[in-house]
Amino acid sequence: MSYRIEKDTMGEVKVPADKLWGAQTERSRNNFKIGAPASMPLEIIYGFAYLKKAAAYTNCKLGVLSTEKRDLIANVCDEILKGKHDDQFPLVIWQTGSGTQSNMNVNEVIANRAHQIAGKVIGEGEKTIQPNDDVNKSQSSNDTFPTGMHIAAYKKVVETTIPGIKQLRDTLNKKSNDFKEVVKIGRTHLMDATPLTLGQELSGYVAQLDHGIKALENTLPHLSELALGGTAVGTGLNTPKGYSKLVAEYIAEFTDLPFVTAPNKFEALAAHDALVETHGALKQIAVSLNKIANDVRMMASGPRSGIGEIIIPANEPGSSIMPGKVNPTQCEALTMVCAQVMGNDVAISVGGLQGHYELNVFKPVMAANVLHSAQLIGDACVSFDLNCAVGIEPNNEVITKLLNNSLMLVTALNTKIGYYKAAEIANTAHKNGTTLKEEAVNLGYVTAEDYDNWVKPEDMVGSLK
Amino acid sequence: MSYRIEKDTMGEVKVPADKLWGAQTERSRNNFKIGAPASMPLEIIYGFAYLKKAAAYTNCKLGVLSTEKRDLIANVCDEILKGKHDDQFPLVIWQTGSGTQSNMNVNEVIANRAHQIAGKVIGEGEKTIQPNDDVNKSQSSNDTFPTGMHIAAYKKVVETTIPGIKQLRDTLNKKSNDFKEVVKIGRTHLMDATPLTLGQELSGYVAQLDHGIKALENTLPHLSELALGGTAVGTGLNTPKGYSKLVAEYIAEFTDLPFVTAPNKFEALAAHDALVETHGALKQIAVSLNKIANDVRMMASGPRSGIGEIIIPANEPGSSIMPGKVNPTQCEALTMVCAQVMGNDVAISVGGLQGHYELNVFKPVMAANVLHSAQLIGDACVSFDLNCAVGIEPNNEVITKLLNNSLMLVTALNTKIGYYKAAEIANTAHKNGTTLKEEAVNLGYVTAEDYDNWVKPEDMVGSLK
Amino acid sequence: MSYRIEKDTMGEVKVPADKLWGAQTERSRNNFKIGAPASMPLEIIYGFAYLKKAAAYTNCKLGVLSTEKRDLIANVCDEILKGKHDDQFPLVIWQTGSGTQSNMNVNEVIANRAHQIAGKVIGEGEKTIQPNDDVNKSQSSNDTFPTGMHIAAYKKVVETTIPGIKQLRDTLNKKSNDFKEVVKIGRTHLMDATPLTLGQELSGYVAQLDHGIKALENTLPHLSELALGGTAVGTGLNTPKGYSKLVAEYIAEFTDLPFVTAPNKFEALAAHDALVETHGALKQIAVSLNKIANDVRMMASGPRSGIGEIIIPANEPGSSIMPGKVNPTQCEALTMVCAQVMGNDVAISVGGLQGHYELNVFKPVMAANVLHSAQLIGDACVSFDLNCAVGIEPNNEVITKLLNNSLMLVTALNTKIGYYKAAEIANTAHKNGTTLKEEAVNLGYVTAEDYDNWVKPEDMVGSLK
Amino acid sequence: MSYRIEKDTMGEVKVPADKLWGAQTERSRNNFKIGAPASMPLEIIYGFAYLKKAAAYTNCKLGVLSTEKRDLIANVCDEILKGKHDDQFPLVIWQTGSGTQSNMNVNEVIANRAHQIAGKVIGEGEKTIQPNDDVNKSQSSNDTFPTGMHIAAYKKVVETTIPGIKQLRDTLNKKSNDFKEVVKIGRTHLMDATPLTLGQELSGYVAQLDHGIKALENTLPHLSELALGGTAVGTGLNTPKGYSKLVAEYIAEFTDLPFVTAPNKFEALAAHDALVETHGALKQIAVSLNKIANDVRMMASGPRSGIGEIIIPANEPGSSIMPGKVNPTQCEALTMVCAQVMGNDVAISVGGLQGHYELNVFKPVMAANVLHSAQLIGDACVSFDLNCAVGIEPNNEVITKLLNNSLMLVTALNTKIGYYKAAEIANTAHKNGTTLKEEAVNLGYVTAEDYDNWVKPEDMVGSLK
Repeated sequence: MSYRIEKDTMGEVKVPADKLWGAQTERSRNNFKIGAPASMPLEIIYGFAYLKKAAAYTNCKLGVLSTEKRDLIANVCDEILKGKHDDQFPLVIWQTGSGTQSNMNVNEVIANRAHQIAGKVIGEGEKTIQPNDDVNKSQSSNDTFPTGMHIAAYKKVVETTIPGIKQLRDTLNKKSNDFKEVVKIGRTHLMDATPLTLGQELSGYVAQLDHGIKALENTLPHLSELALGGTAVGTGLNTPKGYSKLVAEYIAEFTDLPFVTAPNKFEALAAHDALVETHGALKQIAVSLNKIANDVRMMASGPRSGIGEIIIPANEPGSSIMPGKVNPTQCEALTMVCAQVMGNDVAISVGGLQGHYELNVFKPVMAANVLHSAQLIGDACVSFDLNCAVGIEPNNEVITKLLNNSLMLVTALNTKIGYYKAAEIANTAHKNGTTLKEEAVNLGYVTAEDYDNWVKPEDMVGSLK
Repeated sequence: MSYRIEKDTMGEVKVPADKLWGAQTERSRNNFKIGAPASMPLEIIYGFAYLKKAAAYTNCKLGVLSTEKRDLIANVCDEILKGKHDDQFPLVIWQTGSGTQSNMNVNEVIANRAHQIAGKVIGEGEKTIQPNDDVNKSQSSNDTFPTGMHIAAYKKVVETTIPGIKQLRDTLNKKSNDFKEVVKIGRTHLMDATPLTLGQELSGYVAQLDHGIKALENTLPHLSELALGGTAVGTGLNTPKGYSKLVAEYIAEFTDLPFVTAPNKFEALAAHDALVETHGALKQIAVSLNKIANDVRMMASGPRSGIGEIIIPANEPGSSIMPGKVNPTQCEALTMVCAQVMGNDVAISVGGLQGHYELNVFKPVMAANVLHSAQLIGDACVSFDLNCAVGIEPNNEVITKLLNNSLMLVTALNTKIGYYKAAEIANTAHKNGTTLKEEAVNLGYVTAEDYDNWVKPEDMVGSLK
Repeated sequence: MSYRIEKDTMGEVKVPADKLWGAQTERSRNNFKIGAPASMPLEIIYGFAYLKKAAAYTNCKLGVLSTEKRDLIANVCDEILKGKHDDQFPLVIWQTGSGTQSNMNVNEVIANRAHQIAGKVIGEGEKTIQPNDDVNKSQSSNDTFPTGMHIAAYKKVVETTIPGIKQLRDTLNKKSNDFKEVVKIGRTHLMDATPLTLGQELSGYVAQLDHGIKALENTLPHLSELALGGTAVGTGLNTPKGYSKLVAEYIAEFTDLPFVTAPNKFEALAAHDALVETHGALKQIAVSLNKIANDVRMMASGPRSGIGEIIIPANEPGSSIMPGKVNPTQCEALTMVCAQVMGNDVAISVGGLQGHYELNVFKPVMAANVLHSAQLIGDACVSFDLNCAVGIEPNNEVITKLLNNSLMLVTALNTKIGYYKAAEIANTAHKNGTTLKEEAVNLGYVTAEDYDNWVKPEDMVGSLK
Repeated sequence: MSYRIEKDTMGEVKVPADKLWGAQTERSRNNFKIGAPASMPLEIIYGFAYLKKAAAYTNCKLGVLSTEKRDLIANVCDEILKGKHDDQFPLVIWQTGSGTQSNMNVNEVIANRAHQIAGKVIGEGEKTIQPNDDVNKSQSSNDTFPTGMHIAAYKKVVETTIPGIKQLRDTLNKKSNDFKEVVKIGRTHLMDATPLTLGQELSGYVAQLDHGIKALENTLPHLSELALGGTAVGTGLNTPKGYSKLVAEYIAEFTDLPFVTAPNKFEALAAHDALVETHGALKQIAVSLNKIANDVRMMASGPRSGIGEIIIPANEPGSSIMPGKVNPTQCEALTMVCAQVMGNDVAISVGGLQGHYELNVFKPVMAANVLHSAQLIGDACVSFDLNCAVGIEPNNEVITKLLNNSLMLVTALNTKIGYYKAAEIANTAHKNGTTLKEEAVNLGYVTAEDYDNWVKPEDMVGSLK
């Protein structure tokens, strides 16, 4: 492999000749061989691209950067956002906790690529654009990285997570309406209980997801606050007057998202409670989704020796040894995602609680986990929706059989003959393996006619009063 | 010990003669000897007292309970809320996961105490009030327990947690103003950085708590939704028309809190995402508090071989062997609380994600953990405030010494002489153990006069632009 | 209330006249009003009683404490261990993170009670025994508290947790033998699978618990290491020669448990990985128990519209509204315990990872959570055993019906006619709602006779080869 | 792109013509578009390669597979293990929870590649080797996937994790010896305490890692148990006599690791407590490493306004805005890894506790998290070792200054003049900003000569007695 020499304040470094990055990126590559290469999420790099472009525009507007340099920087940022340089960001999550090295990676790539765009050869002549003095002007790693991660997380949540959840929510809502007259046995403690409709059951899931989306949306204002302009410790040292507000406006314009400058930059650098907050809502949604997926697979269990009240799509052969078996694989994928999100929540919190003084140095691990969860939930909801939820159908034959078998219909008699007599009927039928009606009449508590009038499952599912 | 006989649908049980509870409570006491007795939080019992009274009023208003019974029930509820029967609730968290047995405990105590109030002797004659048919009328464990836990959690959050956090927040805000001109060294990566004021540093903590309070308040609407009226599976079976809405209004009136009936009762029984949501915010606040307390103890470290920039109150002798040592004990108590809250969050989530069909049966453990965290955070904030935060004072002598020693003031020269020369000055001073000014002049990059004009810490703390 | 004056290095404090504690305990009571009073586990106080007695014996043997003082101290320790002074330890978990104040609480109570035993009046005359100079001789909070917590945790694990788990394990093992010929349908992905015996199914649980017990026992050697002798920072300053080893021997003698002096005292003060390690095993056991309890309640579900393969004891009326319903309440209690243990594990880890320099100051919260989990698991296993596991019986009628219905018996044909034909038979029977045998013959793949010879559930449960 | 047609029991599927996989892999690719493609760890694929080869050998030896087929299968497995087919495994973690689809992916690749090796064209003619009937012979996904993940996890732990930890441990141990006479101030509660040597301090870290390695090794026997031979539900249906034991012997031979057949196959399929157990130890190690890294960065803090007792290597420019600053970046990378491991532990536990009946369907997420943590810890220890630990040097000047300043040396007087007088000296010096010696003499408690004889830091660091 051929190399060129790049320099930083510590001296010279050999960099692969075909790469755009510079000395500091190369040092980081060598010093942090931890886990898979290039694990730093590209979404954060793209967040950087937005902010570097916005900073260039702001610096230019405020008179500290030339129009030429602004345009060179902006051009490279646009290229990055188009995915043209994805292979120029080889660094890992497990680097310095401020993300300095990824900030420098971006600065170096922009500077070197700008040199190329300016018609020069990388490594020859003075750099057209300086990574520190130009690309990083009015910035510090300490305010750029949290800005990049907020941009990345916000975009992911609104572009992937929420649409995914909503898609599933809408399908469940449609199914809830479709099945609003399918009366079935209810179950509490996993035991037979009074009836409800399948539509009502699904409406509970819809309500869970509605609450979850609301909770997630509640966290967006905090996430919309950008640290940029705080520079090294939050004081905004070395930024021109008006910078903070203006740079946030440019970012809002470029991303078309409602970003604002953080009212308190000290919080924005030293704590990442916004990520904790957003992921708290993601975790809540994972809790909801796990419950929903669990119910679906239990209701679909069988085909002959389980519950079998609903039918879900058969998307693949289920087992390599057991022919004819179709498994609730989408439920399994979704609940595995939920387990991961549960874990990610702890990783984020453990990172969040260990900030020191003016800087939290768990930025990359916190941001990466938020992005991971946001992606997984969004994708898994879509996958579950398309490959499972849309195909859920009631198995009416089983539903009716299980409903009519149930002893819990006796509850309808509570208000007619009192709790204790009703219990006696149920207990007797249970003991004798008989029906409620038989024993109700045998015990002399109700006539057959009254029984039929009083015990109607379809009258027991209420509309809520 | 003397006993009386109580009965339920399973038969007779011996109950201590001096206790108000009945058969089902006694069975639970015997069947669930897990952990400390009476661990079920009293706050939940009080939540039950509100709802039983509200249910009696509603049932009466809707014509299914007599005024006499209503008043008897309400009287006992009022006694319970005054703390007169705290020793009548011996059950543990680790019972049935629906909290049925605590619902019955309340029903039995109310019925037996009402019998006493009615001038009768417990265990003699027909019960004046039936625990199931009267006290529990129009209710199920499945809707009462979640209602009781929402009442308990909501009250705890608004009466203990938020006021505690606000008290600390207000002190920190006052200190932030008091110290707004105390310029000190900043620290990032635990390393010397550019200066800021102590007031700015504290303002970051205030911003954290403001965000935390907002996040917590965002969760209250979900928590204000009451399951009552859903009865066994959410359909509202066996409730009179109009019951759900009216009973929530009574609860709102009795508690003076904005409770409403849950729009979807299926969600309210089968999932407790509201608790997950509220505790998510409590966890976020714990993350914030841990960071704040960590900073305080690091800044107060010493007295001679640490950082020593602030002085915190000496509340107690610090060590049994090391005389004269005063420790950041309030920081320690607070961070231990944060660790517990972090753990409680997982307990709640693990409970929340395992709901089955129409009922989540992790209600007691979820509710107990929310109450535990809400109490601990509120108390710990007050304790930390009164015994630490209010007494925080800058150690101006140390602050000035550490500030003026710092090499990082060189950053002020970045915009004057460029990044690389500034770095050279700092590196040289670092190597030689000299001051920045000496080396700046030696290297010929600035005059002494310019140095003094350009490197002024008080000019480096910005007001954010 | 009447008071007396107690003094410490900070001055005078008013203490309730009828209490044995002194100035520092009282200060702590006032300075840490966090959560329920007296939350510091008594087990830790008892651990202190063992170590204070052992320290007195060691100090005496090594010539630095008189026999009279030794005996006075030892007498009070014995009283404490008999539970005579349980109400003299009012402090909370949420105090200084070294537990200093509980150490002083013990020192003060021992000194004052010794004064009484010596025939004097507390608060009058010079103290017969000095809390610092005598009771705490050769000790620091920093080595006593971790010693006390190791003693407490070790005792709890071997006296409560392991016996509880073993009791349940033995019952499950017995049941596994009892049911070794009960052939039933297996289930994977919650879907019908090839058969196994109920005994085999239970044997898996036994294996889980055996592994769990082994894992827990693996942690005991670390837990048996005592910090005592390290004093303030681990160097053993102010201890007489030979102290560390001897004091551990006395503790081993008094507790009849194999305690040893920690080979490295710096680790024993600055890190509490032993607690992390032990609780890691408790968490593993919680994971196992949750799976077991889940299986039991799913297999017991019904009575008519669930799985219903096993019958569990009916210990209490299950529902206040649904007569005749019996719920898997022991499973619910147990799984709630598991959720709590999952959470406690995080609390302990978060405490463990934040040690600073020579001292971890999350001792009380870590110890309290270990004790909490150890107690809950032990108790819950016994409760689950006595009230559920011992009464588990197969519902042979249901088991047989579900087994014979199953399509998965077709797997027996894989080795006879190949995977694809077997799958076709199953799929056809599934589609037509017919039996495997019918379709196998219809499709011409096997004769009826061969079918009967080849598809025998009892031949499909192997003994493992 | 060009395609070929592959078939499974559900019908035809179009597969990219240049890929070796078949119908079921392609279905999974389409049905589970969740997160990054090909996220299923290659280590698990390699685990499969070992077991498929071993199964082929065993089947051949037991007379149910021809030598030709055995060799074809074994050849492809060897190719896979050489990394020649890494791009043939496109599936994700978030698939069916049994990992069935990855099992089929391996089966299909082996079958198609064997067809090529046999000189045929994929998709033409009858398959030389059937993926189900040959490659998967005597196997099920349910026993292969857990076998593959145990092989992968065991190898990762012994080849990457333990060597990494040991490398760091050995460096710290060497440093501990090197610095055994460097007396420094101790710190408890972050406050100045009695002295110890830097070597002693480091010895505590060594003890932590020694305990951690032991804890991790304790988990290996459980991890060495292989599910293979259990087939679908643990009964070993469709395996030839002697299969389980023999196949484990082959795996042990091929991997050169002490694998054995699991004594209880039901546990090995239905629960993955072995992964929970192993990761519990990884989490303990993360707790230890976090403490160690925290200490290192606090001791290295400065350069002028921090603690500054040790010097760590400067590996990269620390900040883009603050020249001359060198940050503890290796500590940051390591503690971020620890945060991730803490989270992974919860993901694994949440997966582990939700097994149902005969199968846990959280296999991929559990295995992936164990592998992730094991890799990260191993790598991060090596990175921290090479780039930080080996270069740690005491800053003797600072150490001596901080030591001699300290008030805590007064503790040496405790045994000479008693606790209270010693405290008075320290308090007075603290108040007056003077030295201990001055005040000791002023107060008349000791002579200057005695002071010098009694207060010698080097006499206070003990060898532990």
